[in-house]
Amino acid sequence: MTLSEFDLIDRYFRRSGAVRSDVCVGVGDDAALLECPPGMTLVAAVDTLVDGVHFPRGCRPDSVGHRALAVNLSDLAAMGAQPAWALLALTLPAAQAEWLDGFAAAFSALALQHGVTLVGGDTTQGPLAVAVTLLGWVPAGCALRRSGAAPGDALFVSGTPGDAAAGLALEQGRLTAEGDCDSLRERFLFPAPRVALGARLRGYASACIDVSDGLLADALKLARASGCGVELEAARLPLSAPLRALGSERARSFALTGGDDYELCFTVPVQRLERLEADLPSAHWGYTRIGTIRVETGAHVRDESGVKTVAAPGYDHFAGP
Amino acid sequence: MTLSEFDLIDRYFRRSGAVRSDVCVGVGDDAALLECPPGMTLVAAVDTLVDGVHFPRGCRPDSVGHRALAVNLSDLAAMGAQPAWALLALTLPAAQAEWLDGFAAAFSALALQHGVTLVGGDTTQGPLAVAVTLLGWVPAGCALRRSGAAPGDALFVSGTPGDAAAGLALEQGRLTAEGDCDSLRERFLFPAPRVALGARLRGYASACIDVSDGLLADALKLARASGCGVELEAARLPLSAPLRALGSERARSFALTGGDDYELCFTVPVQRLERLEADLPSAHWGYTRIGTIRVETGAHVRDESGVKTVAAPGYDHFAGP
Repeated sequence: MTLSEFDLIDRYFRRSGAVRSDVCVGVGDDAALLECPPGMTLVAAVDTLVDGVHFPRGCRPDSVGHRALAVNLSDLAAMGAQPAWALLALTLPAAQAEWLDGFAAAFSALALQHGVTLVGGDTTQGPLAVAVTLLGWVPAGCALRRSGAAPGDALFVSGTPGDAAAGLALEQGRLTAEGDCDSLRERFLFPAPRVALGARLRGYASACIDVSDGLLADALKLARASGCGVELEAARLPLSAPLRALGSERARSFALTGGDDYELCFTVPVQRLERLEADLPSAHWGYTRIGTIRVETGAHVRDESGVKTVAAPGYDHFAGP
Repeated sequence: MTLSEFDLIDRYFRRSGAVRSDVCVGVGDDAALLECPPGMTLVAAVDTLVDGVHFPRGCRPDSVGHRALAVNLSDLAAMGAQPAWALLALTLPAAQAEWLDGFAAAFSALALQHGVTLVGGDTTQGPLAVAVTLLGWVPAGCALRRSGAAPGDALFVSGTPGDAAAGLALEQGRLTAEGDCDSLRERFLFPAPRVALGARLRGYASACIDVSDGLLADALKLARASGCGVELEAARLPLSAPLRALGSERARSFALTGGDDYELCFTVPVQRLERLEADLPSAHWGYTRIGTIRVETGAHVRDESGVKTVAAPGYDHFAGP
């Protein structure tokens, strides 16, 4: 079944996500009208998912709908922000109801879970791509930045990095494994952005970034933005049981360089560590200390054989072969 | 020359457009941090341009850069809003410096002209597409809506609709003509969004929409949102000299159904018409009365032969053949 552009917006996107009283005008006019609460700083992020680049061609539509919002929720989480309003620019080869059913239901479910309303959008015919802009707020002066870390600060990561990259490799047939592959695939297909943790880290974390390009690469970005370097201790990496089942070498490699985790990587000054553990117990919030911010620039990984310096980790969309 | 993703952002997009003191954090962190002025309602719009759909394949990059922002400026103009901050999601087959030079310079020039800063973005490899999210504000309760028109209100359009559609037809070789073709092409390639007019229409216009899908289609959208119909008088259409040179039949058709004008179509209650002309002289602001809002639903065009009702004007991205 093929729908018109106007039917499509009406059917799938006019009411999507939470109902919010601060939306004066949502989908359906030239622009949305929104009430930003007083004393709050507006936070805005945009991320695009392109077919065959950010997800395998033919990827299930519920995963595409979930991830399109999740990657932006993760950006806001990394700022310690409260998400509120989303705008969706959806480019589709054809308006197929079956595909849209899956996409819109998953997008809307994740939006609802985080109190987000879809307030505007644009649907276009073309090669499949989804750009979501997510708006939210943070109390003035309280946002988490990449640039606040100092030498000596402890480095943490939430969750179990590497699972999503292994899940993608399984999805793409680049990796075959026995054991609990479904949970790894799930971590790629339906990442859980750490919005609640990000907001709670205000006042504790000195710097924060979300892990999308790989833990090592993103930790280095945080360190660089702070004018420092970073040392990770490989033995401290929190590896999930299904990831460990792939072999320790491979598990460590996925965890350090895999990407698509949408976990938070953050730093905490040592004098705040006790208060962090008391107020936000790591066992409950699911984060692990994995290293330390250093004066020496660059990313350094300490393992059984010593310390290695990693030159240029991370994914570059435009890197040559 | 091919650039890395990070070089690309640094070179073209870290400083783009105006310098604004309300940008706490722009490009370079997980999200932008922005100060929305007190007493203002936030206005947000997103629009995507896809290669081969919204512009001809191989279109000059400065036109793509200009139009990607212009179409969103036009949406904010239609709300009577003041634009402030843009986010750019750019998907490119390759990071070619020559193409990016043209794109970024035109985007930045138009942003500067309207006091807009680029505060965030995302660059991805894939089929050429540009999604811009534009944020701005309007004094609380003062936004222009599509839905405020009432029967009897006068209908206006700014500029000379139809030029852009004729310009596109010339660009695509679907139309050949003698005379001033360059000015028509220019109207397609570099539309001038009516931001100043939109802001000035607050307190005068009862409803407003920007003309992107064709004057008749967009006037009908405004009328429908207001629970009314609309009657256009063909003889009143403000046709430019280069458009008239294409022949009166063709000129009228382009003006009514052409699209890509990015002019404003707005309504004014008759009791405000005198004040409108006194405060915003039509000769200076370049708008023309072209019809009237009616009780009878639908779009009706009055010409020499009587009144015709037009069923479903306008462009649908997903319409079948």
